Amino acid sequence: MPLFFDEYPRQTLIPDPKTMVIDRLLPGIDELLDRSWRYISVAKIGWGLPLLIENQQLRDRVKLYRDKGIDVSNGGTLLELASSKNKVGIALDHLLQSGFSTIEMSEGVIDIPRKEKKTIVEFARQNSMKLHIEVGRKNVGNQLSLDDTIDRVNSALDFDPDVVIIEGRETGKSVEIYDSEGHIKWDWVSKIMETFDSSKIMFEAPLEEQQAQLITRIGPSVNLGNISLHSVLPLQSQRMGFRGDTFGGHVSLEIITGSPAAKFVYHIIASHMSIDQGQISRISGLSRRTVQIAIDSLTSQEVIKVSNDPRDMRHHIYSVERIS
Amino acid sequence: MPLFFDEYPRQTLIPDPKTMVIDRLLPGIDELLDRSWRYISVAKIGWGLPLLIENQQLRDRVKLYRDKGIDVSNGGTLLELASSKNKVGIALDHLLQSGFSTIEMSEGVIDIPRKEKKTIVEFARQNSMKLHIEVGRKNVGNQLSLDDTIDRVNSALDFDPDVVIIEGRETGKSVEIYDSEGHIKWDWVSKIMETFDSSKIMFEAPLEEQQAQLITRIGPSVNLGNISLHSVLPLQSQRMGFRGDTFGGHVSLEIITGSPAAKFVYHIIASHMSIDQGQISRISGLSRRTVQIAIDSLTSQEVIKVSNDPRDMRHHIYSVERIS
Amino acid sequence: MPLFFDEYPRQTLIPDPKTMVIDRLLPGIDELLDRSWRYISVAKIGWGLPLLIENQQLRDRVKLYRDKGIDVSNGGTLLELASSKNKVGIALDHLLQSGFSTIEMSEGVIDIPRKEKKTIVEFARQNSMKLHIEVGRKNVGNQLSLDDTIDRVNSALDFDPDVVIIEGRETGKSVEIYDSEGHIKWDWVSKIMETFDSSKIMFEAPLEEQQAQLITRIGPSVNLGNISLHSVLPLQSQRMGFRGDTFGGHVSLEIITGSPAAKFVYHIIASHMSIDQGQISRISGLSRRTVQIAIDSLTSQEVIKVSNDPRDMRHHIYSVERIS
Repeated sequence: MPLFFDEYPRQTLIPDPKTMVIDRLLPGIDELLDRSWRYISVAKIGWGLPLLIENQQLRDRVKLYRDKGIDVSNGGTLLELASSKNKVGIALDHLLQSGFSTIEMSEGVIDIPRKEKKTIVEFARQNSMKLHIEVGRKNVGNQLSLDDTIDRVNSALDFDPDVVIIEGRETGKSVEIYDSEGHIKWDWVSKIMETFDSSKIMFEAPLEEQQAQLITRIGPSVNLGNISLHSVLPLQSQRMGFRGDTFGGHVSLEIITGSPAAKFVYHIIASHMSIDQGQISRISGLSRRTVQIAIDSLTSQEVIKVSNDPRDMRHHIYSVERIS
Repeated sequence: MPLFFDEYPRQTLIPDPKTMVIDRLLPGIDELLDRSWRYISVAKIGWGLPLLIENQQLRDRVKLYRDKGIDVSNGGTLLELASSKNKVGIALDHLLQSGFSTIEMSEGVIDIPRKEKKTIVEFARQNSMKLHIEVGRKNVGNQLSLDDTIDRVNSALDFDPDVVIIEGRETGKSVEIYDSEGHIKWDWVSKIMETFDSSKIMFEAPLEEQQAQLITRIGPSVNLGNISLHSVLPLQSQRMGFRGDTFGGHVSLEIITGSPAAKFVYHIIASHMSIDQGQISRISGLSRRTVQIAIDSLTSQEVIKVSNDPRDMRHHIYSVERIS
Repeated sequence: MPLFFDEYPRQTLIPDPKTMVIDRLLPGIDELLDRSWRYISVAKIGWGLPLLIENQQLRDRVKLYRDKGIDVSNGGTLLELASSKNKVGIALDHLLQSGFSTIEMSEGVIDIPRKEKKTIVEFARQNSMKLHIEVGRKNVGNQLSLDDTIDRVNSALDFDPDVVIIEGRETGKSVEIYDSEGHIKWDWVSKIMETFDSSKIMFEAPLEEQQAQLITRIGPSVNLGNISLHSVLPLQSQRMGFRGDTFGGHVSLEIITGSPAAKFVYHIIASHMSIDQGQISRISGLSRRTVQIAIDSLTSQEVIKVSNDPRDMRHHIYSVERIS
């Protein structure tokens, strides 16, 4: 349930999601953080931008985030570039000295030798830095299959990272879970969410429509990355259920028990004022039988309610049971 | 006619259009307003953002606008959320105390009971606040028809609002006058403009191409909403006729008399250097006969001129009569 | 080769490309320039924005750029508007007095009489201002052909401008080298690059994907215009080869000798980790024979290397020879 002007504490979601912003080094960051720092977990200064500004400017930027308790991460390509130049050690030292608190390791363009990966992971551990591992290739003509993606997430988890990031680039198109129009391939998302602990997975979701849809389907606590700094407050509003797309909020997924199908159906119902079984089946792509079993489970948990369609009393419609 | 460096006062359009910006609470608003305050009528702090920042931060933000004479409005979803939680009174008090000068009421997600609508309208009146009513649903799968839209605008006008806003969301796609690509459905626009007093209607038009097209067709004084703060100056430039799309400006619609078709044809001619009757017919979707009648009317008003096409002297082309 | 943390001077490309930004007069420009001034050649204050703000505000804005050694240009439409109002002299004086250091002349909407063009060019020369001439029409329904474009670039070069700009508008769609989706028409680009000295041509490329592709194909020193201020650092990162699209950087085009096809093939190879002849042929649209000749030339220059595909030893793959 979303919280309102008279409800405190207002700014809480359980579990607390990770939101990773992407920083283009635009002006006014201090003023922006004053209003939105509590909704940002980590800022990525990617794209090789650390190589383009003066060292002191980089340190000052990183410090602004760290002073608010926000982690700061490199973009993975920087270490791939370092690897290709045999300069991983130099890069890691530079990041540490500049105040970065998180190391992102990726294989978006090249493969990093296994031994070098271990060096990177150990460097992070020895220096009490967090570890993010990104899975996915940047080249749209040379993408991983879903099975390869699952395999690589598994391999990444062997390094015990704080989170595994699914590549979305800054365009949100033609990589991993996104098709060439930026639409979400839901079979990919379902498979990934079923296979792994959701708190360990972060989807890069640069477009606001992608953010809204992932929140609607997976729930408000989904970890999201590559968020533009100008989207931080609108995104948090989506998470809280204050906007049209996610109106009325969500019961925390934590309290819904049962199959993934039940959780999926719950979130479809929660994102509509009222909906019938045929619509749920069409939107979810689940069979009517699976939808029926999910509805029975949700009804017995008393998190949804059934009523008669006022326009056709033989017809059932479903809505979320608002919990006071 | 647009005004130039040596023409004063430069910043005037008659009638004065309403421009409603949407505020994401980004940094630098004071500097931005120093340059562009005179082109903004009202700022909407929507999306539930007032629920995400500290009360003092909200009051400070609102005050920056009010000190420049700019109205500040909530987003309608906030009151829908309040209604669903039985907290409309709390929400209205909070907005008033925070300095808001305009109340926006909408039914984008849920229907608000008629009695509650009256409460909202009376609250605005008693506190000398302006009233905006938004028409249109946010859910792209559950849109109003054109006839429903007309009906709802009529119902909204019964409350005597300062303006009725036609929903465009922040995407400008798949709602009301926009198709799924963000193209404008001109039959909707024509019907709305024919039916209502244009000074009472505001189109949300978040994309700059939509703004350019609405100005070209309806005229520079069309009320536009959901304008990004970074579009304020470019939009005003369109209104003044300083850009490619609207080059050379417009005779104020006020001085064109005759049918809506005549005004429409005038603006098509005004947005081209020269154009023939077939092109006008194709662009407007009006029959050749209607176009001919409109041209006769405009010629007799001496606001357009007819010349022979230099490439084919039997062929007439039309252009705007520049008034000194 | 891109330069890394320990390589100095870091911020150098030879030849030094021109990057023209488009300024919407957004806040925070002084802070932004502190970090990125060295990557901006010229700022265009277009769209008639100089007509919308106070003279002192305009002078202050221009001075911020000039103090960093960045040129400031008008948008061409302003002089077209002046021409249509017989006020070119007034406009030029106003620009000079406001501190502009570059005059942009265009025929995007109307044709400027030849005598007036000479006046403009002479004014620029007499006042030691730079001269930019833009080629291309703004109206998407009335575009130049490729041959017309070539003719007009030729005519523009007769005035000895600092650069000829190929129109891209701020949308990057449906004008000159862009189709209605914003994809690049490579036959246009190839023809333009073959016909003219590339240092004299600037492509307006407002979308970041367009920038990445032009850099990948033409090389890091391509002159680019209509760059959003928030794209300056990401663009420079592309030029330096720090991002996924342009990973690993480029040998300066200057040192590649031979046919345009050889340079084109070199840049395709440089933008992939490794690639075979069939792929090069498909991407470039060049015949296999032309590709083979180009490869022979590049191999003999020792700027690419040939190896056997580890998965099929009878198969050759090509990659860039990294120069230490």
